[in-house]
Amino acid sequence: MIVSIIGIGLIGGSMGIALKESGFANHIIGVDRDPDNLDKALRRRLIDEAAPLEVAISRSEVVVLAVPVNAIEDLLPRVLDLIGSQVVLDVGSTKRNILQRIRLHPQRRQYVATHPMAGTEFSGPEAALPGLFSGKCCVFCDVEASSPDAVAVVKWLYEALGMQIVYLGGGEHDVHTAYVSHISHISSFALALTVLKKEEDEKRIFELASGGFGSTVRLAKSSPQMWIPIFEQNRDNVLDVLDEHINTLAQFRSLLIKKDFKTFHQLIEQSNQIKKILP
Amino acid sequence: MIVSIIGIGLIGGSMGIALKESGFANHIIGVDRDPDNLDKALRRRLIDEAAPLEVAISRSEVVVLAVPVNAIEDLLPRVLDLIGSQVVLDVGSTKRNILQRIRLHPQRRQYVATHPMAGTEFSGPEAALPGLFSGKCCVFCDVEASSPDAVAVVKWLYEALGMQIVYLGGGEHDVHTAYVSHISHISSFALALTVLKKEEDEKRIFELASGGFGSTVRLAKSSPQMWIPIFEQNRDNVLDVLDEHINTLAQFRSLLIKKDFKTFHQLIEQSNQIKKILP
Repeated sequence: MIVSIIGIGLIGGSMGIALKESGFANHIIGVDRDPDNLDKALRRRLIDEAAPLEVAISRSEVVVLAVPVNAIEDLLPRVLDLIGSQVVLDVGSTKRNILQRIRLHPQRRQYVATHPMAGTEFSGPEAALPGLFSGKCCVFCDVEASSPDAVAVVKWLYEALGMQIVYLGGGEHDVHTAYVSHISHISSFALALTVLKKEEDEKRIFELASGGFGSTVRLAKSSPQMWIPIFEQNRDNVLDVLDEHINTLAQFRSLLIKKDFKTFHQLIEQSNQIKKILP
Repeated sequence: MIVSIIGIGLIGGSMGIALKESGFANHIIGVDRDPDNLDKALRRRLIDEAAPLEVAISRSEVVVLAVPVNAIEDLLPRVLDLIGSQVVLDVGSTKRNILQRIRLHPQRRQYVATHPMAGTEFSGPEAALPGLFSGKCCVFCDVEASSPDAVAVVKWLYEALGMQIVYLGGGEHDVHTAYVSHISHISSFALALTVLKKEEDEKRIFELASGGFGSTVRLAKSSPQMWIPIFEQNRDNVLDVLDEHINTLAQFRSLLIKKDFKTFHQLIEQSNQIKKILP
């Protein structure tokens, strides 16, 4: 199978190397507007060759869009204009706007909307990891609007990466990811800012930062180029979850003010229930 | 050296095994009000024998208090009443109240206040790890109130565990740890509660929870038995940091409402500076 990957960053690059290793692809063509990224990807053997968009699409059987979600929204209609029998998929972290955008495109059925729930706080081809997807979950959205053949090819692709597939509506997907991914990033960005502000006065503070702090602010290293478009596209859901999160923190605050440590104890016990889900 | 450890949980148990392995101690006596903990600790060889408090102290050269911070506050004066030439240290996560409590005790100079900045979200002797402390940082507080000989013994102990030593005032320590440890826990507890509330309706959500979510809520598995006393003792500092954190989140909220993604982008870039400190 010849696969084109548009956007050779963490996700596109990791996919390139894993699709070759698994045998799904025998040739990977990389497309990226940054020649530096293509260079790095070629040197790290994430892709077999670099080509312009039109050339890559015309020579491929499968086209993967792995650019930030705002770029997917702009690029997807153009890619669908260019294809014949090729199967197209995107890997964006939001789905509703993207799906809305190509809803009436004549080639809609050749496209499958997916979101592999895998990543790290790093970005670019230098961050690519062959085992990034293995054992994780991939969401397929609104599959009834895609042709069964296209869905079968994309299913085969993700199974070759070792992923479990979950089916959701696009709107539903965006609500869920606001809870399990987007709010975690907002919380980490805020925590890093809070502590960095303090650090201006007190250089000492970071000698003390141990494992617990490191894991809660890890996501604060994530790039704004990827995350601002996600927050833009999923703004309403993110705002809902952020409101709930601020309310919970405000409840903790008022328990501390009232010295109601009994209720605080009960809430911590409740939050410990997360063990059942993430052992 | 014969060492008594009072409280054989994650920290006390990890210390027992590491002090034996490093050669600092040739015999560890464990004290715990829970016979089940002592049983587990003996079976896992974290301690060599179990004994009541008075017996353990009388037979030891070094006494380590590794119980929750409220219990340290109550127990430390009693332990100081019982010692002769023994050196006493505690490993509590807050320091100001504890130091205040024994300020005028005639045996004050035999005591060294320490906080090894190491831990995991798990607790009890079954969670003990021999390498828990290695390469991490340990804070010594108000050492000028301890005898140089006692400080030298405790320094030797932590160096045997492979820790770097940092010296701070007790009040300063409590401010710093509110920033680099306590607020991370509050944020994780709140995030877990926010998402668990949603999960009541939507069982699906957790199939999607990938690495990013796992790392930000990891600390939400931490026990209320340990953390409520920390929040009680460090309430004022924790409230200050929590206020700042809520303000930062409220700023993010208002940027989302105004769709001011340019400023949001700049704030994420600022928070990315955490990379310099935690690479």
